[in-house]
Order: sequence, then C-alpha cells, then structure tokens
Amino acid sequence: MPSYKAPVEDVLFLLNDVFGIARYSNLPGFAEATPDVVEAVIAEGAKLCEEVLAPLNRVGDLEGCTRHPDGSVTTPKGFKAGYDAYAGGGWMGLSMPAEYGGQGLPHTLNSVMQEFVSGANTALGMYPGLTQGAMAALLVHGSEEQKRTYLPKMIEGIWTGTMNLTEPHCGTDLGLLKTKAVPNGDGSYALTGTKIFISAGEHDLSENIIHLVLARIEGAPAGTKGISLFVVPKFLVGPDGTVGARNGVSCGAIEHKMGIHGNATCVMNYDGATGWLVGEANRGLNAMFVMMNEARLAVGIQGLGQSEVAYQNAVAYARDRLQGRALTGAKAPEKPADPIIVHPDVRRTLLTIRAFNEAARALVIWTALQADIAHRSEDPAARQAAEDHMGLLTPVVKGVLTDRGFANAVDAQQMFGGHGYIEEWGMSQFVRDARIAQIYEGANGIQAMDLVGRKLPRDGGRAMMRFLAEVEGFCKENAEDESLKVFCAPLMKSLGHLQQATMWLMQNAMAKPDNAGAAATDYMHLMGLVALGYMWGRIAKATAEKKRSGDGIAERLDARLATGRFYVERVLPETGTRLARISAGSDAVMAVPAELF
Amino acid sequence: MPSYKAPVEDVLFLLNDVFGIARYSNLPGFAEATPDVVEAVIAEGAKLCEEVLAPLNRVGDLEGCTRHPDGSVTTPKGFKAGYDAYAGGGWMGLSMPAEYGGQGLPHTLNSVMQEFVSGANTALGMYPGLTQGAMAALLVHGSEEQKRTYLPKMIEGIWTGTMNLTEPHCGTDLGLLKTKAVPNGDGSYALTGTKIFISAGEHDLSENIIHLVLARIEGAPAGTKGISLFVVPKFLVGPDGTVGARNGVSCGAIEHKMGIHGNATCVMNYDGATGWLVGEANRGLNAMFVMMNEARLAVGIQGLGQSEVAYQNAVAYARDRLQGRALTGAKAPEKPADPIIVHPDVRRTLLTIRAFNEAARALVIWTALQADIAHRSEDPAARQAAEDHMGLLTPVVKGVLTDRGFANAVDAQQMFGGHGYIEEWGMSQFVRDARIAQIYEGANGIQAMDLVGRKLPRDGGRAMMRFLAEVEGFCKENAEDESLKVFCAPLMKSLGHLQQATMWLMQNAMAKPDNAGAAATDYMHLMGLVALGYMWGRIAKATAEKKRSGDGIAERLDARLATGRFYVERVLPETGTRLARISAGSDAVMAVPAELF
Repeated sequence: MPSYKAPVEDVLFLLNDVFGIARYSNLPGFAEATPDVVEAVIAEGAKLCEEVLAPLNRVGDLEGCTRHPDGSVTTPKGFKAGYDAYAGGGWMGLSMPAEYGGQGLPHTLNSVMQEFVSGANTALGMYPGLTQGAMAALLVHGSEEQKRTYLPKMIEGIWTGTMNLTEPHCGTDLGLLKTKAVPNGDGSYALTGTKIFISAGEHDLSENIIHLVLARIEGAPAGTKGISLFVVPKFLVGPDGTVGARNGVSCGAIEHKMGIHGNATCVMNYDGATGWLVGEANRGLNAMFVMMNEARLAVGIQGLGQSEVAYQNAVAYARDRLQGRALTGAKAPEKPADPIIVHPDVRRTLLTIRAFNEAARALVIWTALQADIAHRSEDPAARQAAEDHMGLLTPVVKGVLTDRGFANAVDAQQMFGGHGYIEEWGMSQFVRDARIAQIYEGANGIQAMDLVGRKLPRDGGRAMMRFLAEVEGFCKENAEDESLKVFCAPLMKSLGHLQQATMWLMQNAMAKPDNAGAAATDYMHLMGLVALGYMWGRIAKATAEKKRSGDGIAERLDARLATGRFYVERVLPETGTRLARISAGSDAVMAVPAELF
Repeated sequence: MPSYKAPVEDVLFLLNDVFGIARYSNLPGFAEATPDVVEAVIAEGAKLCEEVLAPLNRVGDLEGCTRHPDGSVTTPKGFKAGYDAYAGGGWMGLSMPAEYGGQGLPHTLNSVMQEFVSGANTALGMYPGLTQGAMAALLVHGSEEQKRTYLPKMIEGIWTGTMNLTEPHCGTDLGLLKTKAVPNGDGSYALTGTKIFISAGEHDLSENIIHLVLARIEGAPAGTKGISLFVVPKFLVGPDGTVGARNGVSCGAIEHKMGIHGNATCVMNYDGATGWLVGEANRGLNAMFVMMNEARLAVGIQGLGQSEVAYQNAVAYARDRLQGRALTGAKAPEKPADPIIVHPDVRRTLLTIRAFNEAARALVIWTALQADIAHRSEDPAARQAAEDHMGLLTPVVKGVLTDRGFANAVDAQQMFGGHGYIEEWGMSQFVRDARIAQIYEGANGIQAMDLVGRKLPRDGGRAMMRFLAEVEGFCKENAEDESLKVFCAPLMKSLGHLQQATMWLMQNAMAKPDNAGAAATDYMHLMGLVALGYMWGRIAKATAEKKRSGDGIAERLDARLATGRFYVERVLPETGTRLARISAGSDAVMAVPAELF
C-alpha cells in the first residue's frame, strides 16, 4: 500500500544550484558527469527504485528470509529479480574505477542512489550496500591480485560481499575478538570462529559471496593490535576466475529481527575456512575502518531514506483522511470533514520531518562531495581539507541522520492514528526498518564518542575550527541580505552554542574525561543541528537566487523557504538545551553507584 | 529472557512519605487502607505481576491471537490462567463499590496495580483494563438495573467489557460515526454497523463480553449531538443473571499489529444486535468521556510501565555486558573488559529513563489521589480543586508519559546494541508494545489540543492558575533549604517558561487559533517537564527529610537525590526550547499550501 517517489527534483537542485557540481569538473570522473549525464543517471536510478525495488518492500517484510537445513538461505519472493535489475543496471560499480569494470562516476551520485534505494527497500538495498563496503576495503588494502580476482565480478554483481566483525561477546570492543587464523603454509590461512549479525551473510542472489573477516593470527598480540583482515570467499576461486569448491564457511542460523526482514542477518561459522590476508598482518582494524567509514555514511543515508519515504506516505494520508474541521473554519465544507493536513499540529509534524529531509540530503551530498575530493583531487591542501571534513562529519551523519530518521518515521506513523499501528499500512515497517540504523555500524553512542574523543581533538581541533569558521563566514557574509537575515540570525546564535560547547569541552574534558563521555551524545546532536542549519542557509541562498532570477515556480520556492524558516524557528532552538546539558558536566551522571541503578 | 520486578519500595515511599496517604483517612475507603493493608495489597499485586503475568509476556507476542472461522478468538497459551489469577485475586474490583462486590479501596491503589500489570504484560492487562473502563461508564451513567445486571459479574471477572467508538472512517472525529440504533419498541434497540480497533473485542477469557457502543438513534441529529451510548452484551442476559442467546455482534477479523499481539484487536460487526441505552439519548459522548478519562490515565500509566520494565532490563544488561574500558581507567581489571555501565553515555541514557520513571510514578499517584478526592470527598471545594487537577493533568499524563515511555523503551533497547534488535531478547517487544499508547485513547496530538483548547481556558484558566501557584509556592517555600536549592532554582526557571508560554497563548491564540494548534504539542511537553520537575521537588524534599531523620539507607537516598539532580540539570532545560517553539507562532507552520507538502 505505501509508495515511494525518489526526490529527483530536490537532488538536482542541490547538485546544481546549491553545491555547483560543475565546478569540480577537474576531478577524475566529474568531467564525464555532465548535467545531462547526471540527470539521466538519477532519473534511471529513480525509476528502478520506484518501479522495481519499492514494490518488493512489503513482501520482504512479510516473508523474511528462510534458512534451510543445508545452511542455504532463500530471500523473499522477487528479491532475486530486483537484485538482478539493480546489478544489471550497472549500479554496483557506478563510482568504481573503470579498470575493474566500474563507471568511475562521482561517489556523490552513488550516495544519491543509496538514498533512493534505502527509501524504496532498505532490506534489499543492503545486499549491494555490503558489497560496496567490501569492495571499498579491497580497493584500498587488497593486493593487485585480490583486486583482479574479486572486484570485476563484484562490480558486475555476480558476486556479493559482506563484513564480518561482530562475535557473540564483542561488537563495539573488537579487541576482544577470538576468531583464529592459522597459516596454511601456502600463503593462505585457515579461519575458525563464529561471527554474528552478518548482514547478507548467506542468500540466493549471487553466485559467490566474498566475506571480509576480522580474525587473530595465531600468536598475534592481544587486543586491537593483533587483529588482521582476511578475504574468505564462500566458493574458492580458480585461477581462471571460475568458482570452485565450497569453502569452510556456512550460515548457522538467521536472526529473528524487529525489522529489515528481507535481509538475511546470519550467524556465520568458520570451520578452518581458507582465507587470504588483506593488507598487513595485525593492521586489520585499520583496513576495516575504510569499510566502516563508507558504511557509516551509507547507514546515515538509510536514516534519510526511511525518513523520506515515511514522510511521503504521511503526507498522502494527511491530504486524504477527513477528520474534524480547521480551527479557522471549514476548509472543505462540501465534504463531511476537512483533510487532517489543515490542522496546525499535523503540519508541524510533517514540516519537522520535511525540514530535516531537505537539509539532511544537502548534508549527505556535501559530505559525499568531500569524499570525492579526498579520493580524487590532486591538490594536497584540498584533499586534507576534504579528509578533515569527512572525518568530522561521518559520525554526525551516521548518528544524527539515523536518530532523526527513526524519530521521523515514528512521527509519520503517528499521522495515521490507529491505522499506523496496523502492519498492512506499511508505516510500522518503516519504523521497524529504520530502527536498525541507530544500532549497526557502531551504535550511535559510539559515534558520539568517536566525534568527541577522536575527531574533535585530532590535529589540534583543525577540522572543527574549519567547520566553525565556514559556518560563521556564511552567516557574516549573508547577514545583511534581506532574504537570508531570517536564517543567519538564529544560525549564528546556535553556532554560538556550538562554540561554547566546544570551548567547554576543551576546558573540562582533558582533566576529567567523564565530562566528554557525558557530553558526547548531546554534542553530536548539537553539531548536527548546526550543520543542518547551515545546510538550510545554503539552500535558502540558492533558492533566493532562483527566485530573483525568475527561475522555477515561485510557489515551490516559497514553500521551500517556509520550510527552512520552520527549521530555524522550531528545530534549531534545541541547541540551547543541548548546550545546557553538556555544560552540566558529569557529576550527577557518575554519582549513582552501578549497583544502585 | 527479560524479567520484571514491581517497584514496590518506590511506590510505598511515594504513598507514605511524599503524598502522605494517611492524611486522607476521612475519605470513604481510605480508612480501610491502613499502612498494613496498603503494603499487603501492593506486595500481593507485585507477586502476581512478577510471577504470573510477566512470564506470559513473550508468549503473547509470539503467538498472538487467532480468530477461527466461526468468529471465536483464542488468546495465547497461558493467558486464560493468567487472567483467572488476576480476576481470582479480586483485582478487577479493587476500587469498585462494595455494594456491587468490589473492595472499595482507593483508586490510587488500582493505579499502582495498573502500572505493575502494564510493566509485566501490557497485552494481557488490557483485558481487565478495558473492563474497568466499561465499568466506570456503567457506574456513573447506567441505570440501577444495568448496574445490578453487569457490575457484579464484571467485578468478579466472569464477564469482561469493551469500548466501541472507532469506525473505519472515524476515530478522532466521532461526529462522523454511522452505526445505527433502531428502537425495538420494548425499550431495547437494534444496533447495526461496524466498529474497528476494538481491544479485547472477542476472546476466550470470560463467559460474556459487555460491549459499550456509541451509535446514532434513527433520526438523531448529525454530528456529535446525535450520539448515544448503548450496552450490548455478547450473550443476552436472562432476568436471573444467566447468559442466554447469542446477540447479533461478532468479530469479523483481528488486526495484524506492530505490537500488543496478545490482545485481540477486533473488527466488530453489529447486525441488529440488541442493546440498551446507557444514560440519556444523544448524550453518549458525554457518558463516554467518563470511560475515556479513566482510560487516558490508564494509558499514560502504560507508558510508565513499559519505561520501567525496559529500564530494568537495560540496567541488568549494562551491568553484565563487558565492552571497552572506563575513560578513567579499568574498573574491572580482572575481567577482559569493564561492564558497560561504567561509560558515562550509558549512564546518561539509563538515568534519563530512571529520572522520568520516578517522577512519572509520583505524577500518576498524585493524579490518582485527586481522582479519589474528586469522587469521594464531601467537601465541594476539595472536589472542585481535585476535578480541576484531573481535567488539566489527564492529557499531560496520557500524552507525555506515553511519548516519553516509548522514547525510553527505544533508548533502553539501544543499550543492547545489535542484541536489542533481535526479538528473542525481548527489548523489541517493549518498544513495539509501548508504541500503541501514543496512539490509542486519543492520539497524543489530540491530547495536546485538549489541553490547550479546552482544559487550559476552562473557567478562566482556574485549574492552570492553581497548578502554577502550587509549583511556585513549593519553590518559594523551599528556596532557602540547603538540600533543595539545587532543585528549586532550575524548577523556578522552567516554571517561568511555562508561565511565559501560557501568557503567550492567552495573548496570541484567541485572535489566531492556529497559534494554539501550532503550540499544542510543545505546550503539553513543557507542562509535563514542569510537572515532573515539581514531582522531583516533592520527592527530594521527602528524601532529604528521611536522610535528616536517619531513616532509610543513606546510599539509596543519595542515589535518589542524584537522579533528581540529573533530572533538573539534564532534562528540565528542555523547557527553554519548548518555549522558543511555542512563541515562534504558526506563520511558518501554515505557510506551505497543502498541495506543496
């Protein structure tokens, strides 16, 4: 019953008008991304998501995945055809290097497609999503032979990939992991251990599954410094690239989860499975971080995708459902009641979601552009600035977009009243599917600690100083602009809160680390509020320019500006509360003894 | 796997030390509620919930209810025995009048038991919960004959009850309802129509089901002024009280819901079913409001119950799960890692939930005491004050306790990382079950509108003025007390925000009702924050007194005070954001045309 429409128009506006993607045509792959190509790629991606993937979303939830006694797993009806359409369209290698069969287009376009796929069908989208993460690690850390062996088939979509980190006793603290790798003497290793929560660990969509596995080489140091990364194919690959014997890895069970039923979350048993080291021994966590950063951005994008699809369906319902009359008198007197979209509280809810969606989409594109610059620019200063941005914003995109994405799915469900609670309406699925994004790829509390404990102090706070300066510069530059005043004044105020909070951390967290821990989540959200506020500033500026030039439909441009005004008036003031919490410090947080909780 | 322990000690502290229940011994039923009786009742209720109802919670989720082709419904395995234990313990009539077989004890005790039942097993607790709602309406509006016919059996638990309001095209806007009642000429009516979302509408727990049904008598005016309330038993009742022929009401389907699977949510078909008018014709909504107020408080209590059980299980996990080391150095160096409860962000999350639970429990007991005074006092001024309080606080208890209860269940689930998303751990069920409480008995947006549009302006704002004066009086009275300063100063500040918001509404909502609508939800939460802050003030005062008198374990009293400090430092500052949103007005909210959402 629910439907999905990819936000093509918004994306093109952001790419062209807000971020001026044409300015980057000196970067590899960007010259090929002419406006026509970009529009065609995005339109084609939208079509696939709307017409093929979205209609499979509910069946995925209802059927889930089935594990058979032989350890094989069947995905829901239609998933294979949906996956084939995705792979066949060349989407897996959209931004992968041409030398392995990819199209080499900007990663930014891939991020846009990730949003569309997540909005249409998160569970199905995770099969290619994990594959892209695995490819990223192989691309950066794999040997040339490993790249030639695995990447072309993965880019073609004939093979898929996974990431194997978590074990029953460790998720966050990978230093505790026990999976063992024993050298076979021929350059390969025999891996033995149990991995849990392995998304897309086993399924019927691809000919082979390339597992990237963290394990400890026999005799390696304890803790995180003794962890290595291995590539372990489900079927061993012959020198000619054909699949051969079954490897010693199998799916022991699939989990019964709250949502994303269409994705097989597997317990994976490694029984002397043959694997090959990726990158250096004992530097596996380092190699894995490449995957994790890609994956964290992709998970943040899932939050946005779920928020968008939930919003669209809530709007459709709010326009359709007749209950009560507008406070200012009947708006549809010819009907037995007005559509509920006349009610201010309904509009407030919808606008809260929409104001997030538009700014979050901008934040994703901005950050994805930085990823492209970091990976493709020949200018070291530009690369460094882009890497700083990526490092700083990755936990914010992951943590804030998934926390808000979930909250928005819940609020959208609320618009349906009792019908929202009934599974056949589909809103419950959006909520249940969105929930996982706050948890996996580092629970959001970990993202907050990563931000406050690592990303913020790194290089003397260089990345953060640059971010603060950029936002401040924007505010000052546009403070006198009649159409932007209304955005710049509240943004400046909230930026002040972020500056104060940053200062407070500098003064209070060094001597007392618990102050950083107690502040982390609020700081991450404070930063997210300001970053999204800044995105609204940029969006408003581009919109005002379009209005001045008479380009675009005036009513639509006005609606966008009103949505932005809603954000700065209604959402942004939360920064004050966040600052108050942060500067309360950790005393009350640490005062209660563990046994008295 | 999850467990539940009823918060007996907290409840006794609130009843005895904070609210001094002994002071009310002049009210009917309170004299019998001696400290010994209260303690025995609560201990017995706790035992039933912990040992009988809680163990049935997960089976209820897994099995759900089954409708058979003949329209009969089977509840999950063990529910019948669990229900019988509840009914057999006399819990249904705990606070019902003795003349119909009840125990006549304070409703306050019943509210305490409602929390325990909700924490142990919300889905099972709804069968007696709906029965209590139906009994309340019969008690106030039923004829003496109706009371004699139905109440004794319902109090005994041999019969259960339901509330039939919603129809497919109307939930919030009952003025649209179509179910028809045609006089049979013998004083009875023939009811025809379809009702949906009828909790406990059909099941195998009781001999008879007494449906209270809203319908329109043929020829009655359109809209809400033509609605009457009827009692429609599943089996007609003979003059001797025995059940006779099947009435023309049946369950057409049960809904597939996100949660509370153990409760049968039914589509009820009325095909000329025989019913009898309850109260006056065309005054049905009025009669139904009695049920709805009871039900709204009970639903708010569900939010608290879910928050409490989710908290308990999150704490147990956080004490047990070993990941990482404390920021200030290993706390359990003999173990491979520290329990995650050492981490400030984990403690922050847990304390946010706990600080809510303790204050929300106080708010429930305070409000339930007012219900007792309103119903039982002989002093008209006391009755009026209590009724004012009830009217004002009912939407706050319903809306805020369920919004926060759900958010807390989600946060508690988050403590489990990936395990929280796996159904067998039980945390997902708490989240899914808690979700409904925000929706039913008037979605929370409706509660907010009820508060701002009806309860606040009623009688020139008398109830609100009394509430504000009481909180202000408390703050002023205790501002100089060394141990209470830390509570009074922030509470006074937040009270100022509530006063400003109230003033803003008075000045801006009369001329422009959209300002009230756009402010409603934030106002409800602002009021909730202050009310819970006031509860913390009362709790802190009683705790400080206990400490001074050397009564109680000092560490526990200190832990409670630290939890309260956490509330005023970390939660209460949100009032500033709420005020900012409210005073932003409705311009941006109303600016976007419906078709451009």
